[in-house]
Amino acid sequence: MTTLPGPTVGVVGGGQLGRMLGEAASPLGVDLVVLDPTPDCPANRVANQIVGEFDDPSAVAELAELADVLTYEIELADPGSLLDTGVPVHPAPETLRVTGDKLVEKRAVVEAGVPTADFRQVDDADDLARAVDELGEVMLKARTGGYDGRGNCPVGPGDDYEAALDVVAPDGDWRREDAAGADALAEAMVDFERELAVIGVRGAGGERALFPVTETVHHEEILRVTTTPPRTGNVVVERAQSVVRDVLDGLEGRGVVGVEMFETSDGKVLFNEAAPRPHNSGHWTIEGAHTSQFEQHLRAVLGWPLGPTQRRCETASANLLGDVDVPKSARLSGVDRALGATGAHLHWYGKREARPLRKMGHLTVTGGDDEGPPLSRAEDLAAAATFVDKETAETGTER
Amino acid sequence: MTTLPGPTVGVVGGGQLGRMLGEAASPLGVDLVVLDPTPDCPANRVANQIVGEFDDPSAVAELAELADVLTYEIELADPGSLLDTGVPVHPAPETLRVTGDKLVEKRAVVEAGVPTADFRQVDDADDLARAVDELGEVMLKARTGGYDGRGNCPVGPGDDYEAALDVVAPDGDWRREDAAGADALAEAMVDFERELAVIGVRGAGGERALFPVTETVHHEEILRVTTTPPRTGNVVVERAQSVVRDVLDGLEGRGVVGVEMFETSDGKVLFNEAAPRPHNSGHWTIEGAHTSQFEQHLRAVLGWPLGPTQRRCETASANLLGDVDVPKSARLSGVDRALGATGAHLHWYGKREARPLRKMGHLTVTGGDDEGPPLSRAEDLAAAATFVDKETAETGTER
Repeated sequence: MTTLPGPTVGVVGGGQLGRMLGEAASPLGVDLVVLDPTPDCPANRVANQIVGEFDDPSAVAELAELADVLTYEIELADPGSLLDTGVPVHPAPETLRVTGDKLVEKRAVVEAGVPTADFRQVDDADDLARAVDELGEVMLKARTGGYDGRGNCPVGPGDDYEAALDVVAPDGDWRREDAAGADALAEAMVDFERELAVIGVRGAGGERALFPVTETVHHEEILRVTTTPPRTGNVVVERAQSVVRDVLDGLEGRGVVGVEMFETSDGKVLFNEAAPRPHNSGHWTIEGAHTSQFEQHLRAVLGWPLGPTQRRCETASANLLGDVDVPKSARLSGVDRALGATGAHLHWYGKREARPLRKMGHLTVTGGDDEGPPLSRAEDLAAAATFVDKETAETGTER
Repeated sequence: MTTLPGPTVGVVGGGQLGRMLGEAASPLGVDLVVLDPTPDCPANRVANQIVGEFDDPSAVAELAELADVLTYEIELADPGSLLDTGVPVHPAPETLRVTGDKLVEKRAVVEAGVPTADFRQVDDADDLARAVDELGEVMLKARTGGYDGRGNCPVGPGDDYEAALDVVAPDGDWRREDAAGADALAEAMVDFERELAVIGVRGAGGERALFPVTETVHHEEILRVTTTPPRTGNVVVERAQSVVRDVLDGLEGRGVVGVEMFETSDGKVLFNEAAPRPHNSGHWTIEGAHTSQFEQHLRAVLGWPLGPTQRRCETASANLLGDVDVPKSARLSGVDRALGATGAHLHWYGKREARPLRKMGHLTVTGGDDEGPPLSRAEDLAAAATFVDKETAETGTER
């Protein structure tokens, strides 16, 4: 039986996902405490904060002291430290071991019968040469730690395989005779028609739910916009849902999981990757679904009843990325039109420094009001927002 | 030009209105600091807090030190202290002087040509006798400090006028020869068909906007439910909007104003009272309108563009009041059905103690999903929520 005030949820990580978890926690009567090394982290305006490294066992223990249940919003969380505290952790830290290693993750989904692009383990240049030989052009990826395209490198026949390995394993250790290897994998390039994503959730007592399928658009491997419903057919939507159900089956513990997929030109849906936490592709749910992915994650982690996941209306979101060449103090302008636009909702993550392509915020546009399609409106309104000082840009001079 | 991260807003008062302001501030990149005497006040999970009395000049000065602009969410804020800091205050403290005194407020709206129930100043039993003589049955009200029906007393011909004055001016000072009087007013009883409310807003540069008209239902003078749109005709809706526009004209400064009105049996709309702050009758806007009253208040106070005020869908809200006989530690149960219901949204205010009829939270239900009318669903779901320990209630024994 759910009672309020709710318990305290401890979160490893206090970035934008932690901040939006905090925004969702307050109306539910749930208190949040986050562990993050940055003293003024995005979440700290809406949560208590312990300043410490994500994987510092004593900091994790301190977090557990304050929490009734633990979760994480960053994959750098350390499964061992989390398990050691004795406080329940959701999703299960074992899930982090799987999704935190792209090779282990791919093997797990293949075992669960989920279709995915062909892939090979790559520990040295010979492995990579063989992979290219067998798969054609591949995306070489670091097994751990990569995000937003970092640690990824496209490789084709005749390329410099050693140089490619240096991109994904930059410390060069893989060259040493006694090294375990480059810890990489090579995935066959997918000629996809579009990318799809779904936020799935596992609740208490085996309860499962999926949020509606969304279409995601990436440039330079960074998510730029989402649009829901996706611009594809029902058969593809059902295939995507089937993939996510199978992925959920293979994971342990409670919580939301963001699953990214490819739709191929012949209408197949291939698993790409999964993250056992709220995901950028689900930010649209804050205004666009009956429950947000953040509220849903808290409900699941707490063992509360899951919320309804239906779409309220057609919805698009656009990321507000740092459009600067070098890091600078964050000052976003050009948002007046978005603030005045019907159905437009600005989300700021509280990061003090804008960096090139850093996720600084996002903009969601809901539809159904005769103002036009949410996707083009979101793109248009987001394009006007900038971290570049207008006067500097116009005159081309530094001040 | 609006830029993010936004400035810091200082708020006198950190109750549920402060908490919901904090929830609205975070996505906007606005920081909130509240002044409240209760160390663990509802707003302090989502805002910084200065612990101090609402009207303590040094505490208000401390708040101003941290803030770029000041506002208030409680009418106990002291206009003089606010003006003394030199930091801009919105709405204008002068507005607080008007709306904080029901007699001054009524005179002001009459001067602005707004229809309202007839009223008389009452300082002693003779005044009250004359008022009853002229107006028939009246509602005797304390001019200042009353809320949720406290400080109100219905009085008819032949009643004990002195006893009635003791209800609204309980210190008995009004009986003293040298006293200024009972500081009360008597209002003619209104035979109303229903009650209506509107959140109006004044922005920068004279910009004005109204949220849609909502219907409110009170019992024992405490708001229980709201339903939007109201169950009345267009002519009445337009009259209500006209009243609110006139009230906005009479107020100074920027911010939202909650205006409560009566619809009489012959379709007239009479002004009842106004509060220059977010108002209980506007909580439905969080999920039911394109901008919430809390976000709108922040935008207005900051001089940002106002947000669109249209309704997203039919929406109802129900207050979760303390259903206890005596104060007890707050523990709300019976919310599982609400948590699982489509379009239902639970809001908890973080108050640690449940008291009889205290506002502890609210529940909003949005419509348009074939689940039934939002109002009956909200009433039904809220009725299941209780602060009474089920086992105690069933056995009738204390544990």
